[in-house]
Amino acid sequence: MSKSIFYHAGCPVCISAEHDVLELVGADNVEIVNIGENKSRISEAENAGVKSVPALLTPKGNVLHLNYGASIADVKG
Amino acid sequence: MSKSIFYHAGCPVCISAEHDVLELVGADNVEIVNIGENKSRISEAENAGVKSVPALLTPKGNVLHLNYGASIADVKG
Repeated sequence: MSKSIFYHAGCPVCISAEHDVLELVGADNVEIVNIGENKSRISEAENAGVKSVPALLTPKGNVLHLNYGASIADVKG
Repeated sequence: MSKSIFYHAGCPVCISAEHDVLELVGADNVEIVNIGENKSRISEAENAGVKSVPALLTPKGNVLHLNYGASIADVKG
């Protein structure tokens, strides 16, 4: 199974969800991407259907928005 | 690791998220509970902090609300 991608922006909700995701899915199975710091990957997240963070992009291309930390517009600033 | 509990109410968003969760976490590691049918478990979900479905209650007691299908009030009807 290829990796999931966990998009976040470093907010408290994001960090808490990140720990849960790593435990549930396994650190080897997920790439962690902070789009608050790595702005070049925001468009990639948007194209995948990410509307808010934290969000988990599954290997099948489905997006699971986890709780609600911030919208993509907030992250863009 | 004890099991996570995936609470849902049978809505399309729930069913899609259920498939993703089963693939990511593994069917052996998650109990699926339809609180739309099994109303007796709504209070259990509420006490755990579930405010909308679909939601995943992790073994550590954290709640991940996945996307947004319906509020607990909707499920109660």
